Amino acid sequence: VSSIEELTTELARLPGIGKKTAQRLTYYLIRQPAEQSRRLANALVTARERVRRCNNCYNLTEDEVCSICRDPRRDGSIICVVEEASDIGAIERSGEYRGLFHVLGGHLSPLDGIGPDDLTIAQLIHRVSQGEISEIILATNPSMEGEATALYVQRQLAERAGVRVTRIARGIPVGGDLEYTDGVTIAQALSARREMR
Amino acid sequence: VSSIEELTTELARLPGIGKKTAQRLTYYLIRQPAEQSRRLANALVTARERVRRCNNCYNLTEDEVCSICRDPRRDGSIICVVEEASDIGAIERSGEYRGLFHVLGGHLSPLDGIGPDDLTIAQLIHRVSQGEISEIILATNPSMEGEATALYVQRQLAERAGVRVTRIARGIPVGGDLEYTDGVTIAQALSARREMR
Repeated sequence: VSSIEELTTELARLPGIGKKTAQRLTYYLIRQPAEQSRRLANALVTARERVRRCNNCYNLTEDEVCSICRDPRRDGSIICVVEEASDIGAIERSGEYRGLFHVLGGHLSPLDGIGPDDLTIAQLIHRVSQGEISEIILATNPSMEGEATALYVQRQLAERAGVRVTRIARGIPVGGDLEYTDGVTIAQALSARREMR
Repeated sequence: VSSIEELTTELARLPGIGKKTAQRLTYYLIRQPAEQSRRLANALVTARERVRRCNNCYNLTEDEVCSICRDPRRDGSIICVVEEASDIGAIERSGEYRGLFHVLGGHLSPLDGIGPDDLTIAQLIHRVSQGEISEIILATNPSMEGEATALYVQRQLAERAGVRVTRIARGIPVGGDLEYTDGVTIAQALSARREMR
């Protein structure tokens, strides 16, 4: 049946979903009330249409500026720099952090042709030069590329007087992914952060 | 962001997709071209709207009668009885079978309140009484419930003169699932099928 095959093909495009899983999901969805497929279809289109980048920190948002940047209770003097918007949720769940964020949009990767201009590093430096920033916490992943990116950003910010640049502690397993780390580990890694020199 | 949370929630409703996988898929989809989300959304709604049950064998189809039942090259004297429409694809991939199918729509499960009237057993008996059927191959899963269902159907058909009732061989691991079995194993299980008594 062609509409079944089409749904299976589209589902199999998703990362981590092979052909058999896609088939299983297709048969599942066809057996469920039509309402469920409609809700998922709406959520797909709505999310893709409404979501954009925060003008300030590049977090995902439906507004000009994200809810974290707008929150007056957040400490605007600290910026936690992460690779992806999805890392913010992981740090928020730790309950240890009350500052702002900055989403780089990835990490430096010369082999993939991703250099400093492909990330929001210039925008971060602009934020630092504008505001009253006392600390930049570099929370890129503890991978080769994440470390290299942290080092690069630290070098760019090194000359700024009055700004501490710290690196999140290696409580997160090396090679691990910040996005999938539990809140307790992230809380420990945050509180053990150290000065970068 | 509420539209992001909504998409994550809808994705997490799918079987085998936990909250973290749903989150990963959401962030992936938001980074992809809007076209990809739109195509998946369309495929979802279209499949759910168009797909119905074959009037003859209860396979999934977009027509009154499915393509297998309509195919004049198929041997209409043999019916292979399966639990779910998704099992048909597995048997077709084995390349060993040229007869027709009958989809029961599940298996007997008294604890879940699923009795003979919740399956298409009466419709199968009607097909046998109408047509020139020489053999019924019972290809329900080799699980407790699948065996009980096969036994029940066999009892119902036992009195019909001229109809062999066979059971697919246990080449499929006990407790396994027909839908995920490779074609070679299914071919062996089909050719080693034995009379049910």
